[in-house]
Amino acid sequence: MPEISPTIDSVAGFQVAGVHAGLKKDGALDFSLVLSEVDCAAAGVFTRNKVKAAPVLLDTERLAHNSEGIRAVATNTVSANACTGTIGLENARSTAEMVAEAVGVAAEQVLVMSTGVIGTHLPMKKIARGVELAGANLGSDWRATAAAIMTTDTRPKLGSVKVETAGGNYTIAGIVKGAGMIAPNMATMLSVIVTDAGLTVSDAQESLRQSAQQSFNRIVVDGDTSTNDTVLLLSNGMSGVSLSTGDELSEFQSALDALTRYLAQEVVRDGEGVTKFVTLDVINAATEADAERIGQTIGASVLTKSAFYGSDANWGRIVAAAGRAGTAFDPDRSSLSLAAGEAASDGGGGLKIFSGGMPTDYEEADAAAIMAQPSMTFTLDCGIGAGRATIWTCDISHEYISINGDYRS
Amino acid sequence: MPEISPTIDSVAGFQVAGVHAGLKKDGALDFSLVLSEVDCAAAGVFTRNKVKAAPVLLDTERLAHNSEGIRAVATNTVSANACTGTIGLENARSTAEMVAEAVGVAAEQVLVMSTGVIGTHLPMKKIARGVELAGANLGSDWRATAAAIMTTDTRPKLGSVKVETAGGNYTIAGIVKGAGMIAPNMATMLSVIVTDAGLTVSDAQESLRQSAQQSFNRIVVDGDTSTNDTVLLLSNGMSGVSLSTGDELSEFQSALDALTRYLAQEVVRDGEGVTKFVTLDVINAATEADAERIGQTIGASVLTKSAFYGSDANWGRIVAAAGRAGTAFDPDRSSLSLAAGEAASDGGGGLKIFSGGMPTDYEEADAAAIMAQPSMTFTLDCGIGAGRATIWTCDISHEYISINGDYRS
Repeated sequence: MPEISPTIDSVAGFQVAGVHAGLKKDGALDFSLVLSEVDCAAAGVFTRNKVKAAPVLLDTERLAHNSEGIRAVATNTVSANACTGTIGLENARSTAEMVAEAVGVAAEQVLVMSTGVIGTHLPMKKIARGVELAGANLGSDWRATAAAIMTTDTRPKLGSVKVETAGGNYTIAGIVKGAGMIAPNMATMLSVIVTDAGLTVSDAQESLRQSAQQSFNRIVVDGDTSTNDTVLLLSNGMSGVSLSTGDELSEFQSALDALTRYLAQEVVRDGEGVTKFVTLDVINAATEADAERIGQTIGASVLTKSAFYGSDANWGRIVAAAGRAGTAFDPDRSSLSLAAGEAASDGGGGLKIFSGGMPTDYEEADAAAIMAQPSMTFTLDCGIGAGRATIWTCDISHEYISINGDYRS
Repeated sequence: MPEISPTIDSVAGFQVAGVHAGLKKDGALDFSLVLSEVDCAAAGVFTRNKVKAAPVLLDTERLAHNSEGIRAVATNTVSANACTGTIGLENARSTAEMVAEAVGVAAEQVLVMSTGVIGTHLPMKKIARGVELAGANLGSDWRATAAAIMTTDTRPKLGSVKVETAGGNYTIAGIVKGAGMIAPNMATMLSVIVTDAGLTVSDAQESLRQSAQQSFNRIVVDGDTSTNDTVLLLSNGMSGVSLSTGDELSEFQSALDALTRYLAQEVVRDGEGVTKFVTLDVINAATEADAERIGQTIGASVLTKSAFYGSDANWGRIVAAAGRAGTAFDPDRSSLSLAAGEAASDGGGGLKIFSGGMPTDYEEADAAAIMAQPSMTFTLDCGIGAGRATIWTCDISHEYISINGDYRS
């Protein structure tokens, strides 16, 4: 397994900045820029919500026409620029134009991302200020850049992985924000991943699609899906290492997968009001898609999440959630085990609490001791087929309700 | 619209009891019995969860074979008798046998319902005590009977409607429990509805199916679906009024619909930790099914529910939830209005806050004043077709998390 560093030193040919443009009232960083010295092969995966924010529409269009020549990604917080109609699209375009002018590229080479409240227009004067400041402060402070895309996140989330090959070394690095509205299909999640390895656009797109599927699409904070979800991958080739053979791409894929899994799990750990990190390992479902759907349904169940919060081994809620997932499921063929920590248990080990349609004779105190831990893993063996998926989720706390009861104010 | 009374005086030929069998630790009523003097035509609608509790399996089987001869319904609280395998089925059967013996009918004439924690076996000694006490205390105390099926409900929920016809008068009456785990498809909802009108089994079944679809299937408390949902309709004909013509059945249907809508709304009003009652009127969707699904998705969104709780007119979350419902939806053709109170607005009136893909120039203070009310109605006009559905839902509060964090203890 490639080793992930929770920091980013530098990635050849990329410069970044995170600045305070005046969007946030408390003076915190709120606008960021990622710039490549040379044209990048770029790829993106976006929200599947029918309500797509203006930056999602703009980036999708831009990647369709200019995916071999992307140079920059600019991100603002506070306003999501979603449900903003034609004005919103104009504002997204205008942001890209300002960035292009500030850093000396063409507007078509700039992607934009927004996060914040839905239904408010971008404050363009403040955006202009952000562009100006970011352009003047480019450097290698990835931590500030990651901080500048945060909303209700409590800490910047970033990571990198170095890959050593016979032909030279390259780096993949990424920043991510999340916190709430996180569900399958990357709800209110923004991430920019850059690499100085060289990739074709089609390889970049396929790698990112695969990687997002086993990472960002397998986390659940609250079951909501945002209008703005975006994960971008930019490859500039400045390390001098170009990837084209099957082996090279496969090595890249496993490093990218490790990085996206790390970033995705960081989103759950820093979820709004989260006190427990829960791994749901669904095994022996009819198909992988069924396993994923069962895990996502359990992860999104408010009842189950409340039980996690209360350290209550109320496993019946887990089995009941599996039963309403809309997949093949037979409680009489299923079993459920519980273990402390984060390792998926491969169906072995752990405390078996449900089997053959009935509770086992486990000791409640043993289950309670595991539930009291900050992280735990449930393994649900469906006993039907060979489908497997691991979902990372969390509890729902009083704090979540407080955060989301007055987020706008 | 038929007038619903929040009480039940008497329904010809039915006797009821609600007793304390020792299931609940605090001495509260916890076991109930509904008995008809004569055989009833019976119908039921049940959970669609793949994990079905033992009483659901038993009742389904019994209605398939003996739906013209049902005499009694017994309900216990504290244990749901779900995820209990063959032992659970034996216990459900045994409960019915004890009831049959106590009241002098055949075991095949008795239906059973359970509600409470999943994965614990029925305490049969206490159940036996409940059967004995209930059999000895039969009368017309419907309020106690409704109280005896409660779990986290804060008050008994019951209602009745009297229908006057040229051929005589009849009554329809019902009790219901709900509180949490309430979602489309009647999660953790139990209801017994009785009538002294005479119906065939097939008319009873069709009336109940239709009625549940526009009432119990259109409420959302938390989006979870239980293993035990059951709504039963028993018709004993003791009023002397038999219903068979289209007009008679149509009159019955509208009275039954008014009663089930009332009972369903009572479940939302008494939902766990609920402070706001929210009506979601989805109009002009592509189809009625789409309208229903959009309303249910909004109603189950934890983010939206948190905003209701915080009296925050964060309408973007409503539009975003509509966009991920998996139906046809186009924000640019949609509009959203908000009004105080419970009346669906038919698309007119109310404060329009979103239209043509953008926020209107409404005053935030006007929206906030409505959001501060204990009940409010959102009208989402999808601008696509003629599909319409009204969903009743509520907020999610700190209290919900507290209740469900330690429900078992």
